[in-house]
Amino acid sequence: MDFEELKPLLKNNSNSKIVLLVLDGLGGLPLTHEGKTELETAKTPNLDAIATKSILGLQQPLLPGMTPGSGPAHLGLFGYDPLKYKVGRGVLSALGIDFDLKADDVAARGNFCTVDNEGLITDRRAGRIPTKTCVELCKLLSDNVNIPGVEVFLKPVKEYRFLLVIRGRGLKANITETDPQSVGYEPLLAQAITGGSQKAAEITQEFVSQASEILKDQHPANMLLLRGFSQLPTWPKFSEAFGLKALAIAMYPMYRGVAKLVGMNALPAAHSMEEEIDMLEANWEDNDFFFVHIKKTDSAGEDGDFDLKVSIIEKVDSLMPRIMALKPDVLIVTGDHSTPAKMKSHSWHPVPTMIYSDLCRPDCIAEFGEHACRAGGLGPRFPAYELMPMALAHANRIEKFGA
Amino acid sequence: MDFEELKPLLKNNSNSKIVLLVLDGLGGLPLTHEGKTELETAKTPNLDAIATKSILGLQQPLLPGMTPGSGPAHLGLFGYDPLKYKVGRGVLSALGIDFDLKADDVAARGNFCTVDNEGLITDRRAGRIPTKTCVELCKLLSDNVNIPGVEVFLKPVKEYRFLLVIRGRGLKANITETDPQSVGYEPLLAQAITGGSQKAAEITQEFVSQASEILKDQHPANMLLLRGFSQLPTWPKFSEAFGLKALAIAMYPMYRGVAKLVGMNALPAAHSMEEEIDMLEANWEDNDFFFVHIKKTDSAGEDGDFDLKVSIIEKVDSLMPRIMALKPDVLIVTGDHSTPAKMKSHSWHPVPTMIYSDLCRPDCIAEFGEHACRAGGLGPRFPAYELMPMALAHANRIEKFGA
Repeated sequence: MDFEELKPLLKNNSNSKIVLLVLDGLGGLPLTHEGKTELETAKTPNLDAIATKSILGLQQPLLPGMTPGSGPAHLGLFGYDPLKYKVGRGVLSALGIDFDLKADDVAARGNFCTVDNEGLITDRRAGRIPTKTCVELCKLLSDNVNIPGVEVFLKPVKEYRFLLVIRGRGLKANITETDPQSVGYEPLLAQAITGGSQKAAEITQEFVSQASEILKDQHPANMLLLRGFSQLPTWPKFSEAFGLKALAIAMYPMYRGVAKLVGMNALPAAHSMEEEIDMLEANWEDNDFFFVHIKKTDSAGEDGDFDLKVSIIEKVDSLMPRIMALKPDVLIVTGDHSTPAKMKSHSWHPVPTMIYSDLCRPDCIAEFGEHACRAGGLGPRFPAYELMPMALAHANRIEKFGA
Repeated sequence: MDFEELKPLLKNNSNSKIVLLVLDGLGGLPLTHEGKTELETAKTPNLDAIATKSILGLQQPLLPGMTPGSGPAHLGLFGYDPLKYKVGRGVLSALGIDFDLKADDVAARGNFCTVDNEGLITDRRAGRIPTKTCVELCKLLSDNVNIPGVEVFLKPVKEYRFLLVIRGRGLKANITETDPQSVGYEPLLAQAITGGSQKAAEITQEFVSQASEILKDQHPANMLLLRGFSQLPTWPKFSEAFGLKALAIAMYPMYRGVAKLVGMNALPAAHSMEEEIDMLEANWEDNDFFFVHIKKTDSAGEDGDFDLKVSIIEKVDSLMPRIMALKPDVLIVTGDHSTPAKMKSHSWHPVPTMIYSDLCRPDCIAEFGEHACRAGGLGPRFPAYELMPMALAHANRIEKFGA
């Protein structure tokens, strides 16, 4: 739904509470064609009981066959069509390490790389240097780069990956990438695509030039490549788009970051799932909308550990009575995408989803699982971004359209 | 489907007859999560028998979570995407009371309101004056307003609501509303948004000025507010868009009105459901398409009377043999939206729908109800405006696309 269609229909109903519980990478696959998925294998008496009072379906995070990263997948859940609301890699990198981006900051995702005597790239990942080396190199650059009038931040991410942030007045990030994406070439020049980005392009080139001098005797990371120049987007705020005071509860920076990107408040990182529910309880009265993120389902899927993913789902199930005891008007249980242990990666498979509410038209389905969800009233492949308007409707927060 | 895509494919097949039977507010909710909806509770042997020879589904009138008013909901059933074909409130008010709008007329929805000594609004609804007072005030204004060169019509609607129509040459309705939507403010000036609307804006201001003088000693309705300035739309006619000679049969003006809005002929208001079927039979030979509107399902839902809604559905069921005896090539049974008795209001829940035709691929579903429809071939949440092209196809009225 377009925010413009929805906005005039928003109803102030601040007594109603909505919980969006996201089990990261929830969707799965059976290990054999005859088998069950992780969610179907897990014993989930509490989720199944909620299913009987819910409307079910499978949501598609992007387009058919498209596998989302965490950023776009969460934007969809928050009601922002991820193909329309695109986030640059630089900004996503900043979110992932909890870097506090400001409005004018230009962020880029960096790789340390190796170049030969002639400056041609021989390894785009500098032999996958360990994170420890990345930390040292970022410090070396931070201590020695000096560009008048701007601040330059270098933050290690993982292995050869780092975040570059340039902070200065009136910078625009519409700049070409320096990574040619192939070995055997020189790094490209950062060039302004539009006039307004001229200043940021010049600063970037000055940074690259100083960095190549500082790194030249390092091995194997004697150069760097930059991609995804981007800035904080100026999208409609979640609170204004949906008329909700929203709070994000998560254990990892990426998820707090993407929530903050749409203007949600985010609590400090929790240390366990139990603490996430503690936080939910403690902040219940002061907010309308709660995004609660469970990370470990995805990690287990990425590791190919079917049984671990099953046990984490069962752990979440055991926490459901605490959530239900708060009497949410609307509870959505879903994932941001599928991460089948069978594939050890994110996938495109649609994600089991249920909307519990006293106003939903129940499906007569007594199980929360991929197979069961397919027969549900939400449909077998509905766009993730439809969840928010439906949540608002079930929370009695949307007025009638037309007379 | 876009009319432009469809138009070149329309086939003249004037021997085929389509009936669109709309049970207003048909969709419902169970009173408890374990229960049945109104339609599922009703004993409907005739509808169930038709279901076995039909394709079923649940249609979504607008977007997910959006609750439609009667106007937009019917436009969708008539094949007009209600988010694209928008009707102003003024025009909808005129339809609702059977006012015969002309092409250049400017219509507005009016409220009588109360203002204090300084002209600030203290009650936007003038204490919800009874309809009788509204009738008197409309007459008072009609008798005393005098604006050279135009005709001004004031028609009571209900309680504090009235319809204003300004009739003159070359008027355009692109005017700002005078209702500030809050108390404590003066009524706003009606201003032209585009140059062509200047004349209508000036006439409106002159009307408001005279009306405030005429009303000043009335209590509590000593002023008025105007919203939704609009004119008859210039949309593709139903007959041309779909190649059908169409007839509307209804008991209430709103539904005859919205049918006339798309160019259907409408019979005079019927006085009972039986009379509606009499009218269908009497006009069978001379038309291709019949929109038959049943109002009382919605009224019962609005009143929260679950049992009454059940009994009206059963009454409609008892009339189905008379419709089937006419041997329609295509019969659609649906609602314009859901009106669950549980909510006492229109709602966003998708609406049970079936298309009966000798050419449909039946679903092997032997019941017409929300739960049964969800599993049907039309899908659990398809857009209402897809019904018309499907009806045409099943009536053998669409040619092959491409060679």
